[in-house]
Amino acid sequence: MLLDQRRLPDEEVEVECRSAAEVAEAIRSMAVRGAPAIGIAAAYGYALAAARGEDLEAAAGVLLASRPTAVNLAWALGEMRGVTDPVSRAREIHAEEVERCRRMGEHAADLLAPGASALTHCNAGGLATGGYGTAVGALRAAFARRVLRHVFVDETRPLLQGSRLTAWELERAGIPHTVIADAAAGSLMAQGEVTHVLTGADRVAANGDTANKIGTYALAVLAAHHGIPFYVVAPTSTLDPATPTGADIPIEERDAAEITDRFPARNPAFDVTPASLITAIVTEIGVHRPPYEGSLPRLSTVASR
Amino acid sequence: MLLDQRRLPDEEVEVECRSAAEVAEAIRSMAVRGAPAIGIAAAYGYALAAARGEDLEAAAGVLLASRPTAVNLAWALGEMRGVTDPVSRAREIHAEEVERCRRMGEHAADLLAPGASALTHCNAGGLATGGYGTAVGALRAAFARRVLRHVFVDETRPLLQGSRLTAWELERAGIPHTVIADAAAGSLMAQGEVTHVLTGADRVAANGDTANKIGTYALAVLAAHHGIPFYVVAPTSTLDPATPTGADIPIEERDAAEITDRFPARNPAFDVTPASLITAIVTEIGVHRPPYEGSLPRLSTVASR
Repeated sequence: MLLDQRRLPDEEVEVECRSAAEVAEAIRSMAVRGAPAIGIAAAYGYALAAARGEDLEAAAGVLLASRPTAVNLAWALGEMRGVTDPVSRAREIHAEEVERCRRMGEHAADLLAPGASALTHCNAGGLATGGYGTAVGALRAAFARRVLRHVFVDETRPLLQGSRLTAWELERAGIPHTVIADAAAGSLMAQGEVTHVLTGADRVAANGDTANKIGTYALAVLAAHHGIPFYVVAPTSTLDPATPTGADIPIEERDAAEITDRFPARNPAFDVTPASLITAIVTEIGVHRPPYEGSLPRLSTVASR
Repeated sequence: MLLDQRRLPDEEVEVECRSAAEVAEAIRSMAVRGAPAIGIAAAYGYALAAARGEDLEAAAGVLLASRPTAVNLAWALGEMRGVTDPVSRAREIHAEEVERCRRMGEHAADLLAPGASALTHCNAGGLATGGYGTAVGALRAAFARRVLRHVFVDETRPLLQGSRLTAWELERAGIPHTVIADAAAGSLMAQGEVTHVLTGADRVAANGDTANKIGTYALAVLAAHHGIPFYVVAPTSTLDPATPTGADIPIEERDAAEITDRFPARNPAFDVTPASLITAIVTEIGVHRPPYEGSLPRLSTVASR
């Protein structure tokens, strides 16, 4: 059962998936989205395939192909392959991802100074991660410590994950927030209204280059121009030591009709922020600083898949 | 009669205004928008008031208050005050603005190199100027000279003047174009797909600081980061020597419900790009380069209002 993120915040409706193919379709159509969340969903999809006696390699292939950019799909399917109790392992992956969020939230909250007014993009919240959130988890932890004053939320066109999902989560958490047009972020920075930028990630290459929702790169350039720290908050399941640099990360192009169905359009769903523009990457293990080749954790579990 | 820009591109419907107050309401509600176009509309509104024997100072006050950022309202009303034949003068202002666009389009086209792939924001087209356009006028002139290959059009949230109006104009002009989410512009620049950025302006301060649609400032920062020239194309009626710097330009905050009516939001309609990020400002007189205090034309007609 998946909470259908396409229909939030207007309706809280669940989608029922009965096969790996149905889970893959839910990922493709973004009923569930967010790098850790689609990894978790893929793990459950694999477990469904195992319970139904489906061909597991074929099921893994369908799940892996559902979206290209987030490495968490490959990571979660790597974790599932060959396990004796797939349902238990999927539940374990889910619980571990939420626990990772809580740990990285504490590490990231250490980076915020009292009175912080943070900007975030897209939704790196509980919805994106199976619970709690990466960047939004950091905001939750910082708010609980009373160091976070306010959050600016990019609406995040075209699918409005910011104004539909992140604002919905922040409202439920009681964290003061303001939604803005994506194009307004630079002007708010120039006016001194943003003290920190925090985003999630869909894939972190070995050198620290990070793929995330389209618009993240522009925020990183703007943050650097204004001397504002720019933090990526992501679990180790999003690190991809097998991908050397951002240039090697596949970027999903989605249907142009998400932008306009009346005129020619292009709709890249992600962009790559070079490591040089990232102040720190925060995982559940701690805060990693440039040069990332040396500071990012070397993950034997990831490296061995 | 005004072409209702709120309903484009789906419907081509006219709004009839019978008084200065009705013109002011059409400007406020953005049935007509774009700095030169609202100046022209205000001139016609003033002429309507004169024809109906309304109190002209009151009519000018209502028209001037309809929107705060573009200086063209004040400029056009200054031009109308005391004229003996208001209808003829309004028609003249309209014709002069279009002629200014044609001249500045030629000057701006000189700045583009063959194979240019330009990015523009919002709508600085014929709709915004009574015909032809400022930044879009430059694109028309450059396309006619065969130096312009392609135009990327920011959709321009929240009111989508890019994907509704600029794309509609470029389609009618036969100029190849692609609409993108505002947040995608930086990533396209990083990939080398943008050779020039051209925008209009709502007000140019004496030092060259320029107010334009929210998001313009971020584009200027991104263009500078990527070494891409950033040009403002605007008629002398948009220059405001009486405003020393961008900090003195009033920025309109529009209804937050244009962003979202479900969560708290902020909706500044404009931002200010500092002169230091502007490669050149192009008026009908020519190409003006920094320092703008010396290079922008000294306009006795503007200075004397």
